[in-house]
Amino acid sequence: MKRNPKAIVLTSGGLDSSTVLALAKKKAFDLYALTFSYGQRHHHELEAARRVAGSIGVKEHLFVDLDLRRIGGSALTADINVPKSRSMKRIAQQIPVTYVPARNTIFLSYALAWAEVMLCSEIFMGVNAIDYSGYPDCRPEYIAAFEKMANLATKAGVEGRSRIRIRTPLMAMNKAQIIQTGIALGVDYSITHSCYDPSGEGLACGRCDSCQLRRLGFKQACVPDPTRYSEPLPPL
Amino acid sequence: MKRNPKAIVLTSGGLDSSTVLALAKKKAFDLYALTFSYGQRHHHELEAARRVAGSIGVKEHLFVDLDLRRIGGSALTADINVPKSRSMKRIAQQIPVTYVPARNTIFLSYALAWAEVMLCSEIFMGVNAIDYSGYPDCRPEYIAAFEKMANLATKAGVEGRSRIRIRTPLMAMNKAQIIQTGIALGVDYSITHSCYDPSGEGLACGRCDSCQLRRLGFKQACVPDPTRYSEPLPPL
Repeated sequence: MKRNPKAIVLTSGGLDSSTVLALAKKKAFDLYALTFSYGQRHHHELEAARRVAGSIGVKEHLFVDLDLRRIGGSALTADINVPKSRSMKRIAQQIPVTYVPARNTIFLSYALAWAEVMLCSEIFMGVNAIDYSGYPDCRPEYIAAFEKMANLATKAGVEGRSRIRIRTPLMAMNKAQIIQTGIALGVDYSITHSCYDPSGEGLACGRCDSCQLRRLGFKQACVPDPTRYSEPLPPL
Repeated sequence: MKRNPKAIVLTSGGLDSSTVLALAKKKAFDLYALTFSYGQRHHHELEAARRVAGSIGVKEHLFVDLDLRRIGGSALTADINVPKSRSMKRIAQQIPVTYVPARNTIFLSYALAWAEVMLCSEIFMGVNAIDYSGYPDCRPEYIAAFEKMANLATKAGVEGRSRIRIRTPLMAMNKAQIIQTGIALGVDYSITHSCYDPSGEGLACGRCDSCQLRRLGFKQACVPDPTRYSEPLPPL
């Protein structure tokens, strides 16, 4: 029996990475989900990651602990307030305090290590350059530079066995297109989690940048928003 | 009073990174030592890192726990025997089982995160391409690719505030030159630790690749080897 090629998928439990899991599944990869617990405030993400990986079906799910709080510098890991109700224009223009320094570089570095050990050459990540909250490490030029570095870093690259590819199928999509893609693939967005500042029960605040981008996505995709919010929200 | 610029120095407690600390000190940087505990067998490295940083003088020393054992794939972190008494030719030609997948990429990613938080643009690392045990992530083309990626990954890079530089002052030196450089700067190599497979008391085995490269370095530098070995060794 021919075996499917392996793919590592960075899995946060959010809307984007859940869609990427479904896309990689559709392309007949065997999925290896990689989730980080990095002292983030929104630990409900981790439970969502487990639900989503289980729902879509993965061969293995590796949870790695990283204590980024030792390094600090972000509202997601330090004691800084998460900004609320920022305008879409402002979200698009300015790198917010929720930016975690070098986070995607650290995540991709671990994925690279796992890829080398498993002899896997495909790493999927749900970054996109449209509705991306202004993080520098979500841009295509960054991803291309990481991929180039990865192929110089590794035994497989040096020995010419196989080329590491960082796949970012959502790069050119807006949130509405991502949601429409996921719905077509059967993704259940009700089990995903995007909020940066959820209630104790894991209900979304509806007002942080991540909630706002998500809400707008559902509206523009003309798909009912299945998210459970902690309070009634004014219409967008 | 003018403040010195900051430099992060990856500090393992080994011969190379100790020399780099002394070199960066000489260049009048304020030193921020970064040491990783990554489940390595040779945890005596960590005590050596603390001794060396204390001896040379650093502003801060950050220890970060990384559990690379979850990912595996190396004799340094998994249950694989460390090779002994390999010929120098073989050491130079083949990537050994002590290679830790993507290790330098993970280390540099953390350094990058800390650099961003501290508004520091200099990262020093003791890699060299001569006596380098054949690890792919010790080559100049790899370091250049990482630096390029780093400047696309970060807020400082995007906002054009300052350019991250990965400095590798030992890149073109052999072990003997590194030792002579360190001796001239007053480095006390008796408190450093290089062995991959030390005894319970932290004495060096003298026969792993790292010990062999170190022993040969002292011999070629015409400097008495201050290392304490666990057993008498035949002359090189």
